[in-house]
Amino acid sequence: MQVCVLSGGVGGAKFVRGLVETLGGGAVTAIVNVADDVEVLGMYVSPDLDSVVYALAGIHDDQRGWGRADETWHALESVRALGGESWFMLGDRDLGLHLVRTAALSGGEPLSAVTARIARALGISATLLPATDERLRTFVQTPAGEFHFQEWFVARRHRDEVESLRYEGDAHAAPGVLDAIAAADVLLLAPSNPYVSIAPILHVPQIRDAIERRRVPCVAVSPLVGGRAVKGPADRMLRRLAGGTTPAYVASCYPGLIDALVVDESDDATELEVQAIVTRTLMTDEASRRRVVDAALSVPV
Amino acid sequence: MQVCVLSGGVGGAKFVRGLVETLGGGAVTAIVNVADDVEVLGMYVSPDLDSVVYALAGIHDDQRGWGRADETWHALESVRALGGESWFMLGDRDLGLHLVRTAALSGGEPLSAVTARIARALGISATLLPATDERLRTFVQTPAGEFHFQEWFVARRHRDEVESLRYEGDAHAAPGVLDAIAAADVLLLAPSNPYVSIAPILHVPQIRDAIERRRVPCVAVSPLVGGRAVKGPADRMLRRLAGGTTPAYVASCYPGLIDALVVDESDDATELEVQAIVTRTLMTDEASRRRVVDAALSVPV
Repeated sequence: MQVCVLSGGVGGAKFVRGLVETLGGGAVTAIVNVADDVEVLGMYVSPDLDSVVYALAGIHDDQRGWGRADETWHALESVRALGGESWFMLGDRDLGLHLVRTAALSGGEPLSAVTARIARALGISATLLPATDERLRTFVQTPAGEFHFQEWFVARRHRDEVESLRYEGDAHAAPGVLDAIAAADVLLLAPSNPYVSIAPILHVPQIRDAIERRRVPCVAVSPLVGGRAVKGPADRMLRRLAGGTTPAYVASCYPGLIDALVVDESDDATELEVQAIVTRTLMTDEASRRRVVDAALSVPV
Repeated sequence: MQVCVLSGGVGGAKFVRGLVETLGGGAVTAIVNVADDVEVLGMYVSPDLDSVVYALAGIHDDQRGWGRADETWHALESVRALGGESWFMLGDRDLGLHLVRTAALSGGEPLSAVTARIARALGISATLLPATDERLRTFVQTPAGEFHFQEWFVARRHRDEVESLRYEGDAHAAPGVLDAIAAADVLLLAPSNPYVSIAPILHVPQIRDAIERRRVPCVAVSPLVGGRAVKGPADRMLRRLAGGTTPAYVASCYPGLIDALVVDESDDATELEVQAIVTRTLMTDEASRRRVVDAALSVPV
């Protein structure tokens, strides 16, 4: 059995980790959002890819929820003391990855190739693919103006209400992405923010087309528990942009794209027009990750 | 009284620090070698400038002899684990400076301007100038081939004998350099390696000309103590390239450029054709730095 999962960062990374724990890395291809990628101090930072890499390599920080375990912040302290760009939290161990990736990209290596090399170096057996090797960026429109996603999310601490989003870039799928979708026995949308994590992946026309034309089930996992985001602004965005936070509103983000939605038992799945798969969706340990994965894979293939 | 000192890294940095301790920063302009500068993982690293910056800011590592105090190496560990370029020892705190400088240079700021900004941010009152804002690089020719200075010095641990040197770059003096030389009451050559620290500065024709035409004394401090380098390969290079390691051989590196040489009491200053100023030149604390500075400034202006 082969699964192909579209994923954003932290929440998605937990789900991808659960897939690998359940099925083994050889059965899992993750297609990861790169529209949050940002250049910081000249370095190419890919927060969602990094979250998935760190989670699968088992070197993520579980308490903080993002970045690397045993992290230190000495480079950033030094940058700050010198009046440099310090709005983005770059840990020292994390920096090593950004330096290696940026040097590779500057040398002409595609993002997909350097991602594969990093995953291999860290012993990751699943296939990790950026949605695209080309430039794709999410911008949010707010009453205070338009911001690049990371500027809004990190520098402005996502305090502005999002009125709409814009995905910039006429990007093609990265090598391997369309093959992975074609080879999958089930397609999955991870419990990531529909607007800033999954939508940008679907903004790549080849990926959207491939999922629309699927002959296998496509199952999304809702990122909300009891109508609230586990982390981040997904609930606020759904309320404002979709009109509510019940499973029906989550599913409305994926019209024609999903056959089932995994929802938490605390949510009200009435009016959901796709199949509801009800379980406890909060992922705090291997058992809970496996429960969510089993639910997502319970749709008959 | 204004002094202008040409300096390399570690040994030079101690002497510059002594000058600032003795005269105050307002009296000192250091013109620092940049021909050892190297690009590592896409970052512009300027080891001699950094040594002087860290020494004057009081944040250098005294035990190790280079780099920053309280340093950690987590980014480099991460780079190494990912198979990245890891031959050059980049500490985490040190990295912060490289990131800030590289971002500034990429944005079009000249090296002299970003150096001034960094010095100011760290509370340095002396004037620090790179010899040039343009590209200037030292290459060493050895039986194993020609190497960029840092490749030979760091990656090959300067194990190959140096047969000759080549300074690449048709560089102009950085803004402020010629004015500082013109305004100086005494010119000083720090106890740095004559071939790889001082010679590249003098390779800038405007700087060499200005020193040749000086109307004030120019005093060099020998980097050797008892014919041996305190650190690094200066003694080996002098033996092979000049023919010996006595003060006369050190002075032969600066023909027509110096009026006096500060030498250690353990060295034999016979045959020295410029004035010998004998003292104990090893700098291990403020008192010993001040002793060397007093010796260098003892020539009547």
